[in-house]
Formats: sequence, structure tokens, C-alpha cells
Amino acid sequence: MYRTDTFRIAMAGPADMTKLTALIEDGALDPMHIAAILVKTEGNGGVNDFTREYTCATLAVTLAPYLRTTHAEVERRIAIVVSGGTEGVLSPHATLFARTPIVNRPGTASKRLAIGIAATRDFLPHEIRRAAQIEATAAAVAAAMAHAGIVRAEDVHWVQVKCPLLTAERVQAARRSGHEPVTEIAYKSMAYSRGASALGVAAALGEIPTPVAEDAVLSDWSLASAVASASAGIELKNNVVIVLGNADGVGGDCVIVHAVMQDAIDAAAVLTALRLSGAQPDAEAGARMDTSRIVQVLAKADPSPDGMLRGFRHTMLDDTDISATRHVRAAVGGMIASLIGCPAAFVSGGAEHQGPPGGGPVAVIARVSE
Amino acid sequence: MYRTDTFRIAMAGPADMTKLTALIEDGALDPMHIAAILVKTEGNGGVNDFTREYTCATLAVTLAPYLRTTHAEVERRIAIVVSGGTEGVLSPHATLFARTPIVNRPGTASKRLAIGIAATRDFLPHEIRRAAQIEATAAAVAAAMAHAGIVRAEDVHWVQVKCPLLTAERVQAARRSGHEPVTEIAYKSMAYSRGASALGVAAALGEIPTPVAEDAVLSDWSLASAVASASAGIELKNNVVIVLGNADGVGGDCVIVHAVMQDAIDAAAVLTALRLSGAQPDAEAGARMDTSRIVQVLAKADPSPDGMLRGFRHTMLDDTDISATRHVRAAVGGMIASLIGCPAAFVSGGAEHQGPPGGGPVAVIARVSE
Amino acid sequence: MYRTDTFRIAMAGPADMTKLTALIEDGALDPMHIAAILVKTEGNGGVNDFTREYTCATLAVTLAPYLRTTHAEVERRIAIVVSGGTEGVLSPHATLFARTPIVNRPGTASKRLAIGIAATRDFLPHEIRRAAQIEATAAAVAAAMAHAGIVRAEDVHWVQVKCPLLTAERVQAARRSGHEPVTEIAYKSMAYSRGASALGVAAALGEIPTPVAEDAVLSDWSLASAVASASAGIELKNNVVIVLGNADGVGGDCVIVHAVMQDAIDAAAVLTALRLSGAQPDAEAGARMDTSRIVQVLAKADPSPDGMLRGFRHTMLDDTDISATRHVRAAVGGMIASLIGCPAAFVSGGAEHQGPPGGGPVAVIARVSE
Amino acid sequence: MYRTDTFRIAMAGPADMTKLTALIEDGALDPMHIAAILVKTEGNGGVNDFTREYTCATLAVTLAPYLRTTHAEVERRIAIVVSGGTEGVLSPHATLFARTPIVNRPGTASKRLAIGIAATRDFLPHEIRRAAQIEATAAAVAAAMAHAGIVRAEDVHWVQVKCPLLTAERVQAARRSGHEPVTEIAYKSMAYSRGASALGVAAALGEIPTPVAEDAVLSDWSLASAVASASAGIELKNNVVIVLGNADGVGGDCVIVHAVMQDAIDAAAVLTALRLSGAQPDAEAGARMDTSRIVQVLAKADPSPDGMLRGFRHTMLDDTDISATRHVRAAVGGMIASLIGCPAAFVSGGAEHQGPPGGGPVAVIARVSE
Repeated sequence: MYRTDTFRIAMAGPADMTKLTALIEDGALDPMHIAAILVKTEGNGGVNDFTREYTCATLAVTLAPYLRTTHAEVERRIAIVVSGGTEGVLSPHATLFARTPIVNRPGTASKRLAIGIAATRDFLPHEIRRAAQIEATAAAVAAAMAHAGIVRAEDVHWVQVKCPLLTAERVQAARRSGHEPVTEIAYKSMAYSRGASALGVAAALGEIPTPVAEDAVLSDWSLASAVASASAGIELKNNVVIVLGNADGVGGDCVIVHAVMQDAIDAAAVLTALRLSGAQPDAEAGARMDTSRIVQVLAKADPSPDGMLRGFRHTMLDDTDISATRHVRAAVGGMIASLIGCPAAFVSGGAEHQGPPGGGPVAVIARVSE
Repeated sequence: MYRTDTFRIAMAGPADMTKLTALIEDGALDPMHIAAILVKTEGNGGVNDFTREYTCATLAVTLAPYLRTTHAEVERRIAIVVSGGTEGVLSPHATLFARTPIVNRPGTASKRLAIGIAATRDFLPHEIRRAAQIEATAAAVAAAMAHAGIVRAEDVHWVQVKCPLLTAERVQAARRSGHEPVTEIAYKSMAYSRGASALGVAAALGEIPTPVAEDAVLSDWSLASAVASASAGIELKNNVVIVLGNADGVGGDCVIVHAVMQDAIDAAAVLTALRLSGAQPDAEAGARMDTSRIVQVLAKADPSPDGMLRGFRHTMLDDTDISATRHVRAAVGGMIASLIGCPAAFVSGGAEHQGPPGGGPVAVIARVSE
Repeated sequence: MYRTDTFRIAMAGPADMTKLTALIEDGALDPMHIAAILVKTEGNGGVNDFTREYTCATLAVTLAPYLRTTHAEVERRIAIVVSGGTEGVLSPHATLFARTPIVNRPGTASKRLAIGIAATRDFLPHEIRRAAQIEATAAAVAAAMAHAGIVRAEDVHWVQVKCPLLTAERVQAARRSGHEPVTEIAYKSMAYSRGASALGVAAALGEIPTPVAEDAVLSDWSLASAVASASAGIELKNNVVIVLGNADGVGGDCVIVHAVMQDAIDAAAVLTALRLSGAQPDAEAGARMDTSRIVQVLAKADPSPDGMLRGFRHTMLDDTDISATRHVRAAVGGMIASLIGCPAAFVSGGAEHQGPPGGGPVAVIARVSE
Repeated sequence: MYRTDTFRIAMAGPADMTKLTALIEDGALDPMHIAAILVKTEGNGGVNDFTREYTCATLAVTLAPYLRTTHAEVERRIAIVVSGGTEGVLSPHATLFARTPIVNRPGTASKRLAIGIAATRDFLPHEIRRAAQIEATAAAVAAAMAHAGIVRAEDVHWVQVKCPLLTAERVQAARRSGHEPVTEIAYKSMAYSRGASALGVAAALGEIPTPVAEDAVLSDWSLASAVASASAGIELKNNVVIVLGNADGVGGDCVIVHAVMQDAIDAAAVLTALRLSGAQPDAEAGARMDTSRIVQVLAKADPSPDGMLRGFRHTMLDDTDISATRHVRAAVGGMIASLIGCPAAFVSGGAEHQGPPGGGPVAVIARVSE
């Protein structure tokens, strides 16, 4: 049995560990119990975004002495997901999840925020986007649910997946071993890897029929998960899975809920998630919610692939100067930050098979009001 | 006496006149009565945004035969303001305002949307940001109010100003004539010109004490207008002023209201403006408003100059790859589009002295519910 | 019989026609004899580069009165190719080619710069990249050679092709008529269209075996033309072909030569072309050539697809903030401008099947020294 | 007495230390003797370029065990200068300089490449661009010359300075202590810091009269150094100075020479430096030099502030989407890489008072031919 504690800390740069070490030094956070860290850095979120690996490396260097272990072992023991891109009003920050062992069953009558972690084996380059990746991800989701203590799929509200991408080097390696990877373009491989990971999540949670045909990845857009969030990074070769949900017998004062944004301006979905979390309209702020109990909001952003939004054309896909992912993170970030009154939301791009095309899942972690 | 008609039309590109000519050919819009056109184009909104002048030139070429006049005369008779930048979800579009003469006093009991236009003389390059520009703008606002039929300053809800900028060529010309312009950097001159124009509006409406010291421009941030919106462009040498407000004796079925966003995520201000316009919370969409009567929303977007937003750091001002103006337009556009359920809002950047630093005015044009 | 005259004029913006009209008003250029105009504009050279169509439209508006015809007819009678992107030191400019009829055979003993124009029929969206485009382009090259008076393929030194791209709208149209276009991504369609056009040129000039398999486009990189330069634009539906070479019986004081850059830093190839044009090393400028007789240099720029250059990694293909085409145009433009001492060179990107991967053709137009 | 060894190694990313550790493990480089490391990383070179500090931190982590010291001490003992931006063809790499003690005077008859290092005290924020920074830099240059064993100013061919910039935080600190810094804009402070540093170098070498008026910084462009290269970074508070020149009594097989580019396409200056270094025109490569003895080329790139280049307009200063520094690095990088046949040149931007406006110093390190 354990208690889940959630901390959101601001970062003054990709290597700013000030608030993390303060939490530890102040005794608020036992570093031995950190289960997962979700970070938004101010890189461009693309292939050449080195802030992701810089933050990862700095977290490892910082936490290794506290955990009395090596840098590599830190990254194995803690699920670290760094998502680049704080376009628009978004603010660089980290969300820390700690699993603190408790001896007795917590005295809470209702379910509480639960977290579980699992990882797949390393994938060979040609396995990216293929059945191997989909199925291993599904198995990892099941393992992470068990780790969290979550029994039913409907109690899962966010599945964060960190997945690998293909580099020129990895493509060469695959070919030398006689296997053709799904693409030779790094940027494209990020989309394939995220898409296969999302379908793995959907399969594990019974959201789509199994087995999933690997050709469905980035092709059959009717298949999607309502709670998956995948992020590709150059710094790993396997999939790491973080399941967030609610479970009986878990301690702490938070719950998590979710909704699915049907498009990039679906304020109604965000408001639904806020209401489900217990937030009430704030009389003074007009229709805005009282968001004082909100701990964090997690969301995916996606430019609608047909270039249209509520009957109007958007220009995100045709801009040679700003990538579509950066455009849409700024817009969805603006929407969410304005609805919750805080710019330190976790909004990440690349929502293939994560909600409907052009939309995406949104989850709210909130303190319970009792 | 006149009636104000407002049309919002989508544009498939900076030169797409399809919907404009359709309105004219269908008889819905008499081209002789077009008073003003506000356009959002998909350029970058910076110094090298040529979509602005491209759209202007195409409007002139398209309307000249209908008005039986020259290209240059079209631009003199119609106040055309083109603002570049549809970052994020924003959609390129035009808002047309027509003043149709009516013989008898309209049978409306309350005030209706009124529009008036005026222009200053051409400015010499060294007059940009100086008292000459501030005072001439103030005089033009008064003239435009009279043209609109608006008597009281509190009935003015939006003052769109189109103002000139300095180019290398104009800087040279100024120096040859023995005058030093306020800056030799084109991008900087856009900010100065917008700032002086906004203070001119504020002076005209009694929002700030007069006379305004020219050194206050881009320096004394306590001075601001709650309804000014200034946009700098290379294609003109004078200030063109469009006043939008409500007036007795004007026909039509729309009114305009406004609020002031205190920062870039001030959803409460947008909701306030929506409520003032008559929109009611939509039960089905949760806290979202029923926006079916909204004709258009006009807003300014500004990155807070101190780099902070609700206690969190934003990264807009330090990004070498995306200009701060593009960042913030995407964010504010995301907020407004999500609140009104439509991405074709007029959100423009560069809000110097237009609302508080980091915030900006927002106006809503809505059909009256009677 | 005709004489070829070449003019290079600077442009202060995409719509700056000052120097063009000055040439005409001064009597230096008879507008009736303009055969082709090659322009470099300061747009981004991508899908959303509207400077291309803006310059085209402005040229049409400007020249129509001189040619006493309509805007559309100007674009039909003159081959106008506008290439976006003056990254780095490159300077926006236009190169004008006039074919002035002459009664008697010119008194020149050797071949002179010749120019010929031809156009294909409009292509249906699904014909882009397919055999139809390749073969029609080849036929147009033959027609343009005949128009130029060039008999032998080896006398052709530059073939500029302007070709269409696919937009979302065109893709829909194709699908409605039951045909699947080669891609639904506009940016990708530009590459396909350029590649097919280049192979059409290569086929016409006997550089590669015929018939060309359409699957070779963007796939078999061993196939390439040493003189093709293709540029895709949204403003047309057919291919327009401009052949530049040397021919007997043509008047004028210029010749054209070419070389092939093997990669993006192949200064030796540029120097070879300069020497072939008659330029001699300039003793005072060290190894630099005396470039006083150079009228214009035309070149293609391409980021090597394997990410390597002379054994070193380049970063152009993985940059999310600046497109590879913009990177490489800046680099090749820097090389060429520095070798000829002039930044107004015509360097365009997108060199699929135009020279070897990562390289491209370079041609020099120079006044003969006799 | 010492011997100078120079190594240029490719980097596969900002944290790639493979070739560095290989040099050490192979015995080719004694880590205890590393004096300076100059790195080009693939960041954007602007305020938000975190690759600079990432590479610094990784170098410290990597070298600390070899030097049996702390991370901080590594950065104190070795002068590490990381310059962001490998636009165009430029390739990320590091240049390592080792000073190996030798017992006897080397048996070389002529001067050899010498290197010396020095550092100023930490500056207070308000001292940036002021006399304090200029004078302390000049003193550090003298100290570094002494350290190198260089007696005469004319034997100095490159002075690399790493200098601090102002952040919002440092600006606040200055104001709290009652001092107004020269600017509150981070990007602008980089230019001021580089300019003051360059004037400090010029003063030390007798290139300009002393004392230097602090108001001359970024104002009197007639003042410049022909050998200074300054790079601003967020990671330090003092100036670190690396002097490269030739000196008697120093061992090794390299020399260094320099020339001054008058503008961004001054190939003649680069060729002059190559010839001075002993390179001869390569008969086979036309006018290109035989560059087989070239070890490294160091250069500064600058967009000419008046927007003109050899009578033609450039567009670098007015581009809202790509910063001028990135544009010009790509162009100058293309020129230099093509002239030396290698894309791993050290080309850095921001050349205030480093060569004439729009130009910059270029130095060549070459193996002597004896």
C-alpha cells in the first residue's frame, strides 16, 4: 500500500533543479519514493530539441547522490518523461509523482490518485510502429495498472508513454541487419512511434478490438485512445509507460479525471474535465471555474489533419517557418491556461491516435474537496 | 442617417476575393457603401510580412471596377486594415463594415453599432512617435466619432488605427532633411508608431490627461487606452482611424461592447465582454457561452514585458526562433477561439499602451436579441 | 532571327517594379519582346510563400498596359518564374530575357545566348509526378529548344521549369473524380512535381534512358539532369519551360555555360563554370576570378539527403525551426555570391534529380570578351 | 616551455564526447594539458540556446574524473567557449588546444602556434558594456599573451573572448543594488557585452587609442579589432580570454595567420589568409587552394547594419522568422566551407567591433610545410 503525492515545480531553465532539491532538502519529498517526473521544457519539441536530453541528464546527475546510485540507474528507476515546447503562454515546469509506502490501509472512503510504472524491452529499429511495439506497449500498460493497484480499465485516466524514434544511425543499423525500418525520416518516425504506442494503450484498455493491425498506425484514424499521451525521444530505445488513475486502497488527497477534446478549441471538454474533478463555476470570474483545487492539467494538442476547424481553414500545416506542432501547442496551451488560470500546464504535441484527429485527451488532477 | 452592416468572410489566401465578390454579386453588399475592411492574413505579422500589402493591393484591384475609380482612390475611400499573423488556430478572414444610407430614423429603441472613419495627414519620418503623431491621431479619433454619430466617449468600444513605420529609406530621407527619427530599426519603429497612436486614442477619449508627453511612449506604461488597437504597416504614411461604438439613430441589428484583458490568459475578461454583448451561458456546453449571436470578436495580444504570467515564467521574449508577437497571438487566439467556438477572430499583436502591459482590449460585436 | 538581351534588376520588395518600368521608359527594354522573367523574392520559399504569387500578379498588372492586353494574357505570353527565398546574403532581384527580332543574320562568328519557351497542357492533380508530367515536360523542352533555335542537346545549359503543386483543394478534387494523387501533403507534392519535371528535362536531352519509369521520381537518385532547374508554385497547373543555351544565328553579346556542383560546397564547380564563361583569375583578388563580364549566375541548392558533407554531419535536415531548403540556399548563396562578388544570384532550392543528391547545376551567363 | 597541439573532432550532438574520450584513451591527448576547447553546437545561437550550457556541463562531467577534480574546477582550469549555430552546411565540432610542457627548447627555427589563457574577475551586472569590462578585458589579454609567451601584438592572430550577458534576474539584482544596467533586454546585452570585450582586445593590442570611451561601444563603428572574436553566454559572469598567436620557443607543427573580411562575401580575404598560412592554389581544383594542411579556420560573421552588400539589398535584418545572426552564419559558413573544402569551421556570429561592420576577422591554423 502507498500514498500518491504530486508536486508541480517551476523551472528557470532545462537544468534548473533548485525547486526539486529544495523539496528534498525541506523534507517535503523523499527522493527514494519518486516514481515519475513529467517535464515541459522550453525546447522546440522537434528532432533537434536537446533540452529534453539535457533535462534528463541533469535530473540523473542531481538525483544520483540522493538515491546513492549511478546516473543510468536513476533513469531506470524513475520514469522520466520530458516533453519539449512551451510555446505561447506555457511555462516550463516539472510534475513529480511520489509513491510513499504506507503500512495501513488509508482512511479514505473513496478512490485516490494511483500511479504505476512499467517498461517494455528495447526495440530494434525495424520494430518501431510494428506489432512488436504495439503489443509490448499493451503488456506494459497492464503491468503498470497492476503496479498502480488499478483493477478496472475505466479507472485509468492518463497513460503517458515515452517511446523511441529512429535516427539516421539507427536506420543504417537496421538495414545492415537486413531489416527495413518503417521510415528513414527521423521526424516521421516520431509520429509512427507515438501512434503505435497509443494504439498499444487503446488495446490494453479495451478501447479498440485486438489484435491491432500494424498497418492501422497513422492510417485508420477511427482507432484511438481517450487517455493515451505519447511522446517520442531520442534518449531511449524502449517504451516507458506511466499509468495514472484512481484506485481503492491508495492514500493521498488527489483524484484524476479526464475528458476528450474533439478539436483544438474544445473548451467544453476542458470545462467538463474540470467539473468532473470537483471544480465549480466561480461566481466572481463569470463562467470561469474555481480552480484552486487543481494540481495539474495534462493535455495533448493536435492540428486537425484536414486543415479545417469548425468550418474554417487553419494555417498550421502549411507554415514553413513554424512547425504545426509548435503552433497547436501554443493555441491549446492558451485555451487551457486561460481556463485554469495557470500557464504551467502539461500540454504536449503529437496526438496520433490519442483522441480524435485534431483533438486529444485532457486530464485533471485535483485535490478532493472533503 | 445610416445603417451598419457587418460581414465576416473566410479567405483561402491573401488574394482570395471569392467571398467578397460573391457578397457583392449576390446583392448582399453594395460595394459603394463599404466603409472599412479589417483583415487577418496568414503572414508573419513582422516587418517582412508582404501579405498585408498584397491583400491591400488585391482589394484595390478587385473593388476599383465596382467603385468605378482607381486603385489608389479605393484605398483612400475605404479604411483597409490588414493585420498579419494567424498563428495557432486562427483563421484568415476579413470583416467588412458597410454604412448604408437610410432616409428615416431607424425604428430601433436602443443604440446600434456605429462606425466612423478619419485619417491624419501624412507624417514625416521624424514625426513618428512624436507629439505630431499623438495629437493628429487624437484629432482623427474625434473626427471619426463625429462621422459615426457617436457623442459620448463611453460609447466608443474599439478604435482601430493603422499607422506607418520607418524603413531604412525613410530614415535616410529624414536625416537628409536634418531630422533624426526616433529609431533606425524598422521593427522597433512599429512599436513606437503603435504606442503613439494608442496614446492619441486615449487622449481623445479622455482616458489619460492631455497633453501627452511624447516621452511617455513606450516608457510610461501606466498610460493606456481600453479600446485602442493599433497596427503598423509599410504601406501608408499617415494614420487611418476607424471608430466602432454604439449610437442612437443608427440602424442595423448589432451592438458592440468591450472589456480589458489584464493578461494573456484573462478568460474572465473575454467572458465578461461576451456577457455584456448578451451571450448567456450555454447549459449544454457547460460554462461555455451560447455564442450564436456573436458576429465578431476583436482583441489585442501582448507578451507581458516582465516575462511573468500569474507568477510563472513565460518564454516568449527570449525565443530566437519564433517572435514573441507570433507566440502570444497563437495563445490569445487559442483562448478566444475556444471561448467563442470560432477560429476566425481578429486577434492582432503589438499592444503597446493598448490595455495594461501583457493584456489588451477585447471587443465583441453581436446581434441584438430582440 | 532574334537577339537575346539580358537584364538583372534589383527589387526593393516583391511588388517593386521601379527598375522594370525605368528600363521600359528609358527605351532600353521593349516590353513587347520580353520572353521570360526569373525572380528571386524574399519569401520563405515554402508552401505559404505568397511573395511568389504577389510578384507574378504585380508583374501582370504592371506589364498589361504596356502589352495592351489583360493580366492573364501577360502571364501566358511571358514565362514568369518566381523563386522564393533570399536567405543569408542573397538579394531580391529579377533577371529579364528579351528576344528582339532582327532582320539579318547577326555578324557574330560564334554561338550566342539563345532562349526558347514552351508550356505543357494543364495537368490533372493525379498526373503530378506521373508519366503524364514527365513526358509532357520532355516534349515541352524539345519545343522550347526549337523556339530558341538550338539544335544540339549539348548546347543547352539551363532549363528552368515552373511546375504545379498539390493543394488540399486539388487533392479533394482528384479524389472526387476517382483518382488518387501521389501525396496529400502540399510540401511533399512540390518535391514530386520538381522531380518529375527534372526527369522530363533529362529525358528530352538524352541524359537518361527513355521511357522514364514514373516510380523513379524521388527514388532512383542515379537519374538526374545536369542543367534542369525546377521550381514549384501554387499559381499554375501546367509546366512552363524556359530553355537557355547557345545557338548559331542568334544575336547578342552573351553566352551561357554550366557545370555541376557535386555537393553544397563545391566551389571548384562554380569556378569551372566561371572559367568556361571566359572569366580569368584576378591577380589582385588572389584566386578570385575577374567577374566583371558576369551577367548572372543560376544555381540549385540541395541539402545532401544522407545528412553528411565531406565526411562531416550537417544539421539541415533535422532542424524544426528552419527548413532545410532555407538553410542550404543561404549556404550555397554565400558560396556563389562570394565567388562572383555579387549577392544577386539566382539560387533556388529543391534540386531533386537536378544534379547529384546534395549538389546541383550552376550556370553562368557572361558577356563575350571579343 | 610548451608545445601546442590542436585537435578538431566531430560531435554527433551537444553531449557527444565519444571522440574526446577516444583521443584521451588512445593516448593522443593528455587531459591534464588541455588548455582550451572551442565548440560549435547546433543550437540557435540566441538567448534560448541551451546547447551551449549543455555542452559545457557535459564537458565538465566527462573531464572531471580524468582531471581528478570537480565539475566546477574543470570549467575554471580549461577555457571552454561554446558558440551556438551551425546553420547551412556548418558541422558541429570541437577544437581542442593542448599545452604540453617540454623540457628543452623546441628545435624549430620559426615561430609556432602559441596559446595563452586569462580571466577577469566577475562583473556586476551594471558593469557590462562599461569601462570596467573594457579595461579588465584589456588586462586579461595582456596576461594571456604573457601566458602564451607572445611578446609583440602583431604576433597575435585571434583573441577569443567569452563574456557574460544580462538576464532578467541579473537586471533586477542590479537595480536592487541601485545600479542601472545598460539594457534590460537579454538579446541586446549580448551585443553590448561582445562589443565592449572586442574594444578591450583592440585596446590591449594597440589597435585603437586608449582609454576607450565606454559610449563608443555599439556606437563608434570606426573602432574595431582585427583579431577579436567575442561570444556571450549565460553560463558565466566574467570574461575568459584565449589568445592565439605565434611565438618563438614554442613547440608544435602549426602556425596561425589572419585576415579581415570587409564584408560577408569577402572570399578574397579568406583566400589571403589561406595563402598566408602556406596554402597554394590547387591546379586541379581551379582557383581553389590546396587545403590539406589546414587544421582549422576561425571566423566571425556579421550582417551589414545598413542592409546593403556590394550595392545590393540584403534581407537579413528584416526577417521576423530567422534571426539575422543565423542568416549570416549560414552564408559566411557556406563561403568558408567551400573555400577550404570542409564544413567543420568555427564561424560565430555577433561581430560588433570585430572587424568592420558587416565583416569580421578570419584566422587560419595550418601545419607548417617543412
